[in-house]
Amino acid sequence: MKNRELNARITAIGKEFFESIKGETPSVFNKELWFGKVLDWSMKNEDFKVRMFRFVDVFPCLTIGELLTGHIKEYFGSEDQEVPAVLRWGARSADFGGAVGAALLSKAIRYNLKMLAGQFIVGETKDEALKNLARLREDGFAAVVDILGEATVSEEEAEEYVKSYLELLDGLKIAGKAWRPLGGGEGAENLDWGSRPKVSIAVKPTSFYSQTKPLNLEGSVMHIMERVKCIYEKVIAMGGSLCIDMESYQYKDITLELFRRLRMEYRDYPYLGIALQSYLRDTDRDLAELLAWAKQNALPVSIRLVKGAYWDYENIRAKQNGWDIPVYTIKADTDAAFERHARMILENHEFCYLECASHNIRSIFAVLETARDLGVPEEYYEFQVLYGMAESIRKGLLYKAGRIRLYCPYGEMVPGMGYLVRRLLENTSNESFLRQTFAEETDIGRLLEDPEDSAERERARLAATAMKAVVEPDGLPLFRNEPVADFTKREVREAFPKAIAAVREKFGRTYPLFINGGEVTTDKKITSVNPADPSEEVGYVCQAGVEEVKRAIAAAKAAFPAWRDIAPRARAEYLLKAAEVARRRIYEFSAWQILEIGKQWDQAHADVTEAIDFLEYYAREMVRLGTPRQLGSAPGEKNHCMYEPRGVAAIIAPWNFPLAISCGMASAAMVTGNCVVFKPSSLTPVVGYNLAEIFREAGVPAGVFNFVPGRSGDIGDFLVEHPDISIIAFTGSMEVGLNIIEKAARVHPGQAHIKRVVCEMGGKNAIIIDDDANLDEAVPLVLASAFGFQGQKCSACSRVIVLDTVYDQFVERLLKAAKAKKIGPAEDPSCDVGAVADADAQKKVLRYIEIGKEEGKVLYMSDIPDTGYYVPITIIGEIRPEHRIAQEEIFGPVLALMRVKNFDQALEWANSTRFALTGGIFSRSPERLERARREFRVGNLYLNRQVTGALVERQPFGGFHMSGGGTKAGGFDYLLHFLDPRVVSENTMRRGFAP
Amino acid sequence: MKNRELNARITAIGKEFFESIKGETPSVFNKELWFGKVLDWSMKNEDFKVRMFRFVDVFPCLTIGELLTGHIKEYFGSEDQEVPAVLRWGARSADFGGAVGAALLSKAIRYNLKMLAGQFIVGETKDEALKNLARLREDGFAAVVDILGEATVSEEEAEEYVKSYLELLDGLKIAGKAWRPLGGGEGAENLDWGSRPKVSIAVKPTSFYSQTKPLNLEGSVMHIMERVKCIYEKVIAMGGSLCIDMESYQYKDITLELFRRLRMEYRDYPYLGIALQSYLRDTDRDLAELLAWAKQNALPVSIRLVKGAYWDYENIRAKQNGWDIPVYTIKADTDAAFERHARMILENHEFCYLECASHNIRSIFAVLETARDLGVPEEYYEFQVLYGMAESIRKGLLYKAGRIRLYCPYGEMVPGMGYLVRRLLENTSNESFLRQTFAEETDIGRLLEDPEDSAERERARLAATAMKAVVEPDGLPLFRNEPVADFTKREVREAFPKAIAAVREKFGRTYPLFINGGEVTTDKKITSVNPADPSEEVGYVCQAGVEEVKRAIAAAKAAFPAWRDIAPRARAEYLLKAAEVARRRIYEFSAWQILEIGKQWDQAHADVTEAIDFLEYYAREMVRLGTPRQLGSAPGEKNHCMYEPRGVAAIIAPWNFPLAISCGMASAAMVTGNCVVFKPSSLTPVVGYNLAEIFREAGVPAGVFNFVPGRSGDIGDFLVEHPDISIIAFTGSMEVGLNIIEKAARVHPGQAHIKRVVCEMGGKNAIIIDDDANLDEAVPLVLASAFGFQGQKCSACSRVIVLDTVYDQFVERLLKAAKAKKIGPAEDPSCDVGAVADADAQKKVLRYIEIGKEEGKVLYMSDIPDTGYYVPITIIGEIRPEHRIAQEEIFGPVLALMRVKNFDQALEWANSTRFALTGGIFSRSPERLERARREFRVGNLYLNRQVTGALVERQPFGGFHMSGGGTKAGGFDYLLHFLDPRVVSENTMRRGFAP
Repeated sequence: MKNRELNARITAIGKEFFESIKGETPSVFNKELWFGKVLDWSMKNEDFKVRMFRFVDVFPCLTIGELLTGHIKEYFGSEDQEVPAVLRWGARSADFGGAVGAALLSKAIRYNLKMLAGQFIVGETKDEALKNLARLREDGFAAVVDILGEATVSEEEAEEYVKSYLELLDGLKIAGKAWRPLGGGEGAENLDWGSRPKVSIAVKPTSFYSQTKPLNLEGSVMHIMERVKCIYEKVIAMGGSLCIDMESYQYKDITLELFRRLRMEYRDYPYLGIALQSYLRDTDRDLAELLAWAKQNALPVSIRLVKGAYWDYENIRAKQNGWDIPVYTIKADTDAAFERHARMILENHEFCYLECASHNIRSIFAVLETARDLGVPEEYYEFQVLYGMAESIRKGLLYKAGRIRLYCPYGEMVPGMGYLVRRLLENTSNESFLRQTFAEETDIGRLLEDPEDSAERERARLAATAMKAVVEPDGLPLFRNEPVADFTKREVREAFPKAIAAVREKFGRTYPLFINGGEVTTDKKITSVNPADPSEEVGYVCQAGVEEVKRAIAAAKAAFPAWRDIAPRARAEYLLKAAEVARRRIYEFSAWQILEIGKQWDQAHADVTEAIDFLEYYAREMVRLGTPRQLGSAPGEKNHCMYEPRGVAAIIAPWNFPLAISCGMASAAMVTGNCVVFKPSSLTPVVGYNLAEIFREAGVPAGVFNFVPGRSGDIGDFLVEHPDISIIAFTGSMEVGLNIIEKAARVHPGQAHIKRVVCEMGGKNAIIIDDDANLDEAVPLVLASAFGFQGQKCSACSRVIVLDTVYDQFVERLLKAAKAKKIGPAEDPSCDVGAVADADAQKKVLRYIEIGKEEGKVLYMSDIPDTGYYVPITIIGEIRPEHRIAQEEIFGPVLALMRVKNFDQALEWANSTRFALTGGIFSRSPERLERARREFRVGNLYLNRQVTGALVERQPFGGFHMSGGGTKAGGFDYLLHFLDPRVVSENTMRRGFAP
Repeated sequence: MKNRELNARITAIGKEFFESIKGETPSVFNKELWFGKVLDWSMKNEDFKVRMFRFVDVFPCLTIGELLTGHIKEYFGSEDQEVPAVLRWGARSADFGGAVGAALLSKAIRYNLKMLAGQFIVGETKDEALKNLARLREDGFAAVVDILGEATVSEEEAEEYVKSYLELLDGLKIAGKAWRPLGGGEGAENLDWGSRPKVSIAVKPTSFYSQTKPLNLEGSVMHIMERVKCIYEKVIAMGGSLCIDMESYQYKDITLELFRRLRMEYRDYPYLGIALQSYLRDTDRDLAELLAWAKQNALPVSIRLVKGAYWDYENIRAKQNGWDIPVYTIKADTDAAFERHARMILENHEFCYLECASHNIRSIFAVLETARDLGVPEEYYEFQVLYGMAESIRKGLLYKAGRIRLYCPYGEMVPGMGYLVRRLLENTSNESFLRQTFAEETDIGRLLEDPEDSAERERARLAATAMKAVVEPDGLPLFRNEPVADFTKREVREAFPKAIAAVREKFGRTYPLFINGGEVTTDKKITSVNPADPSEEVGYVCQAGVEEVKRAIAAAKAAFPAWRDIAPRARAEYLLKAAEVARRRIYEFSAWQILEIGKQWDQAHADVTEAIDFLEYYAREMVRLGTPRQLGSAPGEKNHCMYEPRGVAAIIAPWNFPLAISCGMASAAMVTGNCVVFKPSSLTPVVGYNLAEIFREAGVPAGVFNFVPGRSGDIGDFLVEHPDISIIAFTGSMEVGLNIIEKAARVHPGQAHIKRVVCEMGGKNAIIIDDDANLDEAVPLVLASAFGFQGQKCSACSRVIVLDTVYDQFVERLLKAAKAKKIGPAEDPSCDVGAVADADAQKKVLRYIEIGKEEGKVLYMSDIPDTGYYVPITIIGEIRPEHRIAQEEIFGPVLALMRVKNFDQALEWANSTRFALTGGIFSRSPERLERARREFRVGNLYLNRQVTGALVERQPFGGFHMSGGGTKAGGFDYLLHFLDPRVVSENTMRRGFAP
């Protein structure tokens, strides 16, 4: 594409430019300034950088003096860190200087950080911003204005945001009139350089709809569109331009769709732009499609081409979810893509105006020279630079290219911190062009090199140092969690309605039991219905009675010796095959759950991936445990520890994770060499049958897995008390669990083993909101934890314990955010909360809401659809530990709010129930996070995240006290509960001789 | 000592000698011969050497064709081994050749191995031996004759052995008359070389008393003396000489004492010798004392100076027991010691005749030249060589030194195999002088070097490569088992009677409870008596009632939070301090057990060392578990697993390991952060008080350990059912255990935890005797397993399952051996079996003996003392699985014999009880040992050793089925039972940025 000549020209001009700006260090790299020093230190010391950036993040919350001094001490006070003098002094004085010292310090730090923020933010208020914009225009720079703010947790916040844009536009309208057009004013008075509106704003689409999510693309676009239209119409009215910013990858398709619709709707007005990110692998395709679309529809567009500012986030998110990484991992690949994309746009300049937004000198001159090379007239492109970044470049560039626009965010600090941290990262990252240029002595030739060459070299270097994939014993690759559904992918979004329709086709079938490798039918049937519409009968499942359970136990017992005696690796192989089956039929299995128990798309899919995780993980764990472990090192003897299965396991499963938990318990029992009698919940017998199908398809030998759906009242006790059952794995309520434990403890005639009960029971889980919590995260994650799958998870949050100082603020936002949740059938992706499991569940939850009304104050109760087992999502305030609402498991979308006077009380109240399952805390105080680690005594504690969604291997799951036996499903010790250890000691000495 | 001149002379003469024997390879190194080839292969291939020597060991048992071919296949048949052609051919033909091929092969191997044995053994019968001796004398060699045989498991076998010596002497008397004296016959007709009796025999003292043991030095010497006297008197009568061989280190002091007494008793007869081993570090002192004794008493002696043939064994045994290694670990140190010892003897030649027994040319000429240097007349020393070893050396030496005697063992193959294997090891070990000389091209200069120089060099080399001692986290040295009592040490032997006397002084005291750091007395007392003499009252222990238990639980509960919250390392420190206390007071604590519950010295001592092991091991385990374990590797999140104690643990302890098991359960509970309410058995409350003293002295905080002795009937259920108890650790009978499990499963109001029960219950443990078992080992180890501490161990053997083909032979030896066991008070070291725990135990065991009489046939019942709770040790034959004697735990010295038709049936019967605790097998079939590993399903399986005495860390102990919950005391997972796991997951991403 690019010829040598052009490249040589780029390099030559670039060198000249470097020469021209020599010695003009941008202020962020100026070590004479406080923040220049801090950034310098951050680049040298990774630990300090983490603390510093985190401190910057929390800083706007530290409005009370004590809070600020406390945090300074926690972040920078420890003796063992190297901390710049200015901070260390501060930290110590916070300790020893008493109130006066602390107040002074507080003031100093506050001042310095405001200075730092002011570096990147054009003003805290509209007026301040307008004043600064005028000044910038004086210097010859155009601007695009953006209001800070990213997280919109409620519709009211979204409305507020719209309102502030409308006010901004009012201000710009007035101010703009006074602005002289840049570039001489050959065109209309309203245009800079004769072609671009003087007034230009940018918006972040997700800010306009609090429930934006890829899963609900259509609904998200629709909601955003409605609000953006008000703004855009005002922009049009005043002859301005609007650019739709691109945020993280998950919203990309929503943003593109929004842009196209908006462009279409106002087809006659040309000044609508969109930002595209060159670091995305998708952008080649997206850009080509967009250009083709513009051309075809004769709708010229603007594109702000950026490299992308969420690189760390995209990487981490993809890795955490097991998805393909959407961004280039080699920095130079992004640079090369940027040049490629710019050229594509320039080649199509008739339909597309290019806003080249980069601080990279090589990129800038590559675009400039390419444009000249292609003979693109100047009015088809401009250059953009972020306010406060790379001042010397923007100044120099003004002389070279003329058309320079600054991206100018304004607004308050709190919502602006995300933006500020991104800018700090951008300046300090190892691969930052600015850092390399201004803070390090990087060779200019290298900086100006064709990025394709740089990328090639980097690729070669990586290939040379690439390590072989780590492989576990027996040739198995290392365990990785099965990726959760990536709804950014169209095919994933489309798979669900298709699978739901296909499953619905199968409604009304009858399902047999599965005993000793054969199907068994009985007369009595369980009728399974769709909880969102109980008139819809999902299927009829044969019911096992005592006779069938007896047969199943006998079959399992008979199959046991052979199953026990095959190699652990061979048993693991069956699990791996089962995982393959589940993977292949994942949408179908998800659809069954959506319709039989009311799980939302993502939740249903995650249930199946969790089942796959259990299969894959336990398979590997058994291979590990199957290798005898040597003990001691004395000569003349060999000691090995190995494991032995126990016999027949009864698996008594819940309805809330009808595939995942069933599969986890059953596969653990099986892979360890036990045989299984599986009783699914009678609310999810068809999903239970899915599991039987999985093991059947995987070829598990007859008798090893037996499927006996039935009413607990008919067969529960019989199963538990049967002398041939030696393990009971149960997940369900505390009442049933304790009954099982008690029944299983009695030894019956003919019984070979002391029964072991692996039980997971209820929870009454709390999340603590600390006084420095990031509420942008806390509010939506508390709601997700409390109302996801209608709160019907043992891990769900049912209490929020909020520190007094933030209580009102938190609750206000929480209530507003709760109102944005839509109640309706799980199969509808626009609904957030569905029906509860059945009429009993509904009755029980409604009863608790009544209790809640008496004990506390109902702050919110949603509406509910007329049919289906719905209950309103309910938030109850003024709850104290002595209330039943604070003590009993409700298992529905009911959330209790508790106000505490301090952190000690928060921990005390959090620990004050019979349960100890999950818990969470939102805090940015290192010390309190550490205290929570130690003193918030639950099986699974989560710091600054939702309290549901534990992943196999990474978050082994389970609680203690009355929440369970302290076993950890999906953890490294779990299989031991299904095994007995055996030690074999050999005397290897014979006649005084030992090897 | 040695001067340069002398050393130069030794080297020069040595070189000459080497020159003179050049090309004369001893037959064992002759690769033209079958066994030369086999030895050559063994030296090249360690795995083959192990298999070959083990095959040689088992070979004499393979009297049936099938057995032989089967073993050849198992030892040498696998494809993946490199095996010499001759064996591989054999192994394959055993498989494919069918009966004829196998028979031929069997014959060939049998022939070859007989040839090999014949190399080292002068004859299989007395007559053959005498014929060969005459031939040797023709060649100029004198001889000392020894009858093969080491293991004497019964007194009848000892008597047999005496008889065969007497017969040998009869034969020698007649044959000797015909022998011409060697060396010209200047002296009497009866003397060789004019000074040494023609007839010379050697004896192994332990063969004359089946119960020889260092613990009972006096008794051992007395019994051996009695029998050796018959032989010695006959030797004296015929004017011969007797040498007392030295065996393994443990018998050294017995042998020295025996020698001195014998020498004294027949003080006028000079020809009594003893072998001393230069490889022992003790020998410098022993030799000096012996020479001083001889001088002082004017009793000239002979010393056969050898280097020692049990090096591997001594090393292994010392390491297994944690003792100082009694032998030099640098080979050259032994060589140097040999020269040093020889010089000491030569310097005292007036009192001591030197028999220099070595094949090492350097050693031989060092002695010869030293003798000449000191001017010692020739008649004061002679040289000895083992028959069949180093023929060229002995021949060459005859010309140089004249006075050469061959050590000539004779006898049957089976008892001779130990000797044969030692000779093979001696020839093939890497440090063998013969191997270096004849099989490797070692530099002669090196071989003849002064061993002090060699040792110095080796020491320097080792020091250079020495690694730093491996240290565990927190600076703790690696765990090592506390050494068991080494009764070879006089101070240890003397410590016991002293401690027993001191403890007896304290009889009759009253002991308080210990609650919340203070002593509490009650009115009701438990009177503890000596079971060997119930009229002797050991002490009076205050009895806790429900009120005291309540107080103890409340104290434990109150102490819990603080104890939980201190660092794991700090809690571990208390255990380490407690271990120090136990170590310091070990003899006292042993003595209490000897007198309160009737443990023998060694058993009582081992109980205390096990207690120390638990303390030391659990301390380290808690440090390990105290470090949170990181899970998963996804970026942007940190997952850690850590552990949490549960609260108050009830420790309900047994009387049979009253300190060890109590200490193990209590310390596990405590180190994990739980507080303890400890109820000792009411049969051992004073030992229970010992444990309280230990923790008190260690400074454990008030309330953490509470001591509440009491009657189970009064307080057992209350303790188990109390809602504040969250762990119950119990060791005892199945009946009580199952009752506890059932009671603990019921949740009571106010209860915070589902109670966890860590329980170890009974056993009905079997040992299988395979058709190729080494009965020399099986017989005594079965008896030790069955009757040690009166069979009152849950691990004790109570069934022996014997394959039909060896049944008669095994049972005959077993019964004879059982008769040698002496019944009497545990405090008397000459007694093997003591009284059972109390009158109830006595009654119960006697009742089972009655049942045994009905079900089977009583083959042996010992006498018992008149007073004390004794029961006869009893062996009952003709028992089958359906008998109660084969199914119920007796907990006394009663052993059932079961005859099975084959190995399958042996495994089936072994696994046919409700229990699954310990088991054992004596077999030398690799395949059957492997099958037992897989199919003999017990918690602790032992191959070719006793089934009791599991050691902490090396043999984690515990069973399943009705033997226990599958927990493993002293194992790497044990502490987890006292903990709840907690997982903490932190979202480390803030504003898209993660460390």
